[in-house]
Amino acid sequence: MKKDSAEILCVGTEILLGNIVNTNSAVISRGLAQLGINMYHHTVVGDNPQRLKEALEIAFSRNNIVITTGGLGPTYDDLTKETIAEYFGVPLELHSPSLVLIKDFFKRIGREMTENNIKQALLPKGCIVLENHNGTAPGAIIEGEGRTAVMLPGPPREMEPMFREQVMPYLEKRSQQVLRSHCVYFFGIGESALEQQLRERMISMENPTLAPYAKDGEVMLRVTASAKDEMQAEALLKPAVDQLVKEFPTLIYGVDVDNLQTAAVGELSKKGLKVATAESCTGGYISKRITEVAGSSQVFDCGVTSYANEIKEKVLGVSHETLQTYGAVSPQTAREMAQGVRELAGADIGVSTTGIAGPGGGTPEKPVGLVYVGVSSPWHSEVITLHLARGNYDNERELIRYLAASHALHLVIKTAKLK
Amino acid sequence: MKKDSAEILCVGTEILLGNIVNTNSAVISRGLAQLGINMYHHTVVGDNPQRLKEALEIAFSRNNIVITTGGLGPTYDDLTKETIAEYFGVPLELHSPSLVLIKDFFKRIGREMTENNIKQALLPKGCIVLENHNGTAPGAIIEGEGRTAVMLPGPPREMEPMFREQVMPYLEKRSQQVLRSHCVYFFGIGESALEQQLRERMISMENPTLAPYAKDGEVMLRVTASAKDEMQAEALLKPAVDQLVKEFPTLIYGVDVDNLQTAAVGELSKKGLKVATAESCTGGYISKRITEVAGSSQVFDCGVTSYANEIKEKVLGVSHETLQTYGAVSPQTAREMAQGVRELAGADIGVSTTGIAGPGGGTPEKPVGLVYVGVSSPWHSEVITLHLARGNYDNERELIRYLAASHALHLVIKTAKLK
Repeated sequence: MKKDSAEILCVGTEILLGNIVNTNSAVISRGLAQLGINMYHHTVVGDNPQRLKEALEIAFSRNNIVITTGGLGPTYDDLTKETIAEYFGVPLELHSPSLVLIKDFFKRIGREMTENNIKQALLPKGCIVLENHNGTAPGAIIEGEGRTAVMLPGPPREMEPMFREQVMPYLEKRSQQVLRSHCVYFFGIGESALEQQLRERMISMENPTLAPYAKDGEVMLRVTASAKDEMQAEALLKPAVDQLVKEFPTLIYGVDVDNLQTAAVGELSKKGLKVATAESCTGGYISKRITEVAGSSQVFDCGVTSYANEIKEKVLGVSHETLQTYGAVSPQTAREMAQGVRELAGADIGVSTTGIAGPGGGTPEKPVGLVYVGVSSPWHSEVITLHLARGNYDNERELIRYLAASHALHLVIKTAKLK
Repeated sequence: MKKDSAEILCVGTEILLGNIVNTNSAVISRGLAQLGINMYHHTVVGDNPQRLKEALEIAFSRNNIVITTGGLGPTYDDLTKETIAEYFGVPLELHSPSLVLIKDFFKRIGREMTENNIKQALLPKGCIVLENHNGTAPGAIIEGEGRTAVMLPGPPREMEPMFREQVMPYLEKRSQQVLRSHCVYFFGIGESALEQQLRERMISMENPTLAPYAKDGEVMLRVTASAKDEMQAEALLKPAVDQLVKEFPTLIYGVDVDNLQTAAVGELSKKGLKVATAESCTGGYISKRITEVAGSSQVFDCGVTSYANEIKEKVLGVSHETLQTYGAVSPQTAREMAQGVRELAGADIGVSTTGIAGPGGGTPEKPVGLVYVGVSSPWHSEVITLHLARGNYDNERELIRYLAASHALHLVIKTAKLK
């Protein structure tokens, strides 16, 4: 039997116009990688039946599974089902249970069902119907002549649960092996420097494999093993991951932790500690990232965005003299902010940021990108100085704020570990 | 002369594995739409020279411009330049000015240049070199036999400015017409309900055209005109946009405003007002979104994330009785939080959130997704009740927090407009 390989075919002019970012392909790709199904191509075409048909033909010429997203909706330019049904030579017919679900959905969210929504209950004859629990358009799977087309809705909120709960189990049955990965997270080293150190291994290792990828000032190293079952895969992965953690004890902040905020909440929980945030240039970004982790209320009670000097004084207790003498963007202010919020919140650790996020506000002495991050606790306090400007990048403000928040979270992890 | 059309060809196994989301395609697509260059396909292939070559051949069989991203880096699997140079039949040679820039870059960020970075200065003979001001890999443009390949680096931070500053001007010379758009932002209506109302117009209008797209509880309607020059395009756009604003005065919160936070900061600035935030379930998300807007310090001094009841009492002055009687998640608490932070900050408007973001913490009386948003000002105060749960969506916590913050920003815009 030829091994399955899949292509993702996203349908939507709004993707080609750049109005939306194609996150669906990433979600589906991760799922297929987990199932060990090869994926060599992603394609996007517009809401145009002729080009969709051509793309479908190219996709099936090189892969036996094609997963589409988009074009299942109620509007006149939603034509994916029509085109694929024609390709497979089957008609569309009304699927009554789907129409009931669509009507129920509208009732549940308290909106009127408009007439055009009925179109969504027309499905290819003989298909496997995929129920949509988060929207109106059902998905469908058609099989024929060794080919499989999986049709999913475009909105990620609808597509993701349908893919995970209905398509993944369907595909898993077809797969002969499992692929399992662990993700090792580095902070404080660039991708090429890390690759230089790991290059020999990355080339020579075949199972598991190592693959680095850089994002927003961090590097994630994916260690992936292929095996008959999950236990065998884990047995291959463990020594490789353990070796890395031993080799880079300060640069690695976690394994399979997703991100710095999850690692920080995990470390704080483990030690039974609470953190409080005092943010100037990051404007709530640290607080937002901590609280996006479910269960963060165990380790976080209070954050203050003190954008104005008066708030730094009045709420956080930064001294007027410090602000007058050294300015709001200074290591002294960062230190007092971290200490102040720790006392205000009755927390174990206080963390603070103050800096110039840009695009305005920079001076030769205090340029855009200069950020002080402070941490305060009874057992460890420090202030670090960062220069986060990276050139004329369009959204440098976002980058500086994000990186400053990342450094703050990293300092929280470090401080919690020192307890 | 045949009209230009372009295909984006992204190279990177990490995209096919779902490790990174393909944001580059969206950025490039928006740029080409602005230039009026047609775009009918996006393709992604892995770091595999054979499949890259085949994808290149398919792309050039249907388009005369191919824009690649990725595969220009220092590592052994970066093979885009090699493959494309071979396709065009030209050799790679060392480009000394690029090597100087690469060395400078490493000096600037204070890291050692590793040997493998020299590979990045090898460029196709006779190409137009695109300088990289934000990283190490230069880009390149090759022309030959009516075909053009534009090679850009993969990291968005490097790709975006290179595309905007060097590729857009290069392409603009080739374009015969301009395409201009205005984006009209709706809050409080679903996509299919809006489409139902606008359907006739969406089908019948040819220049300008209307295209809706839904995202995170909002609908953006793109109005696009094609013309000989910018002035003609604007003359076509204005009546269409004016008509929409007249027709949907409460649902439209702005035109070309990007998002709710930009609209809120704009409205507050216009009225000379300041806002303060008191956040429970949104955990700093409103504050983060306001301060991501450059210039927000004119309208925002102070935000408090009061995750614990003690902080709601101590910092925001919510009464102990209110918390005891009605609970933290109640309209009464939302009201006192909004008022409390307004007084603490000396702001004109206070806005607050309190609710159950999930996944845990829900009860039959107060289920996950129940959120109260409060606004307080001398001229207008109210508390709205939201039910934001949408089913078993994986990242429902993020969705609930995001939507709650959106409603809060929308209430701020409304309150500022009432002044």
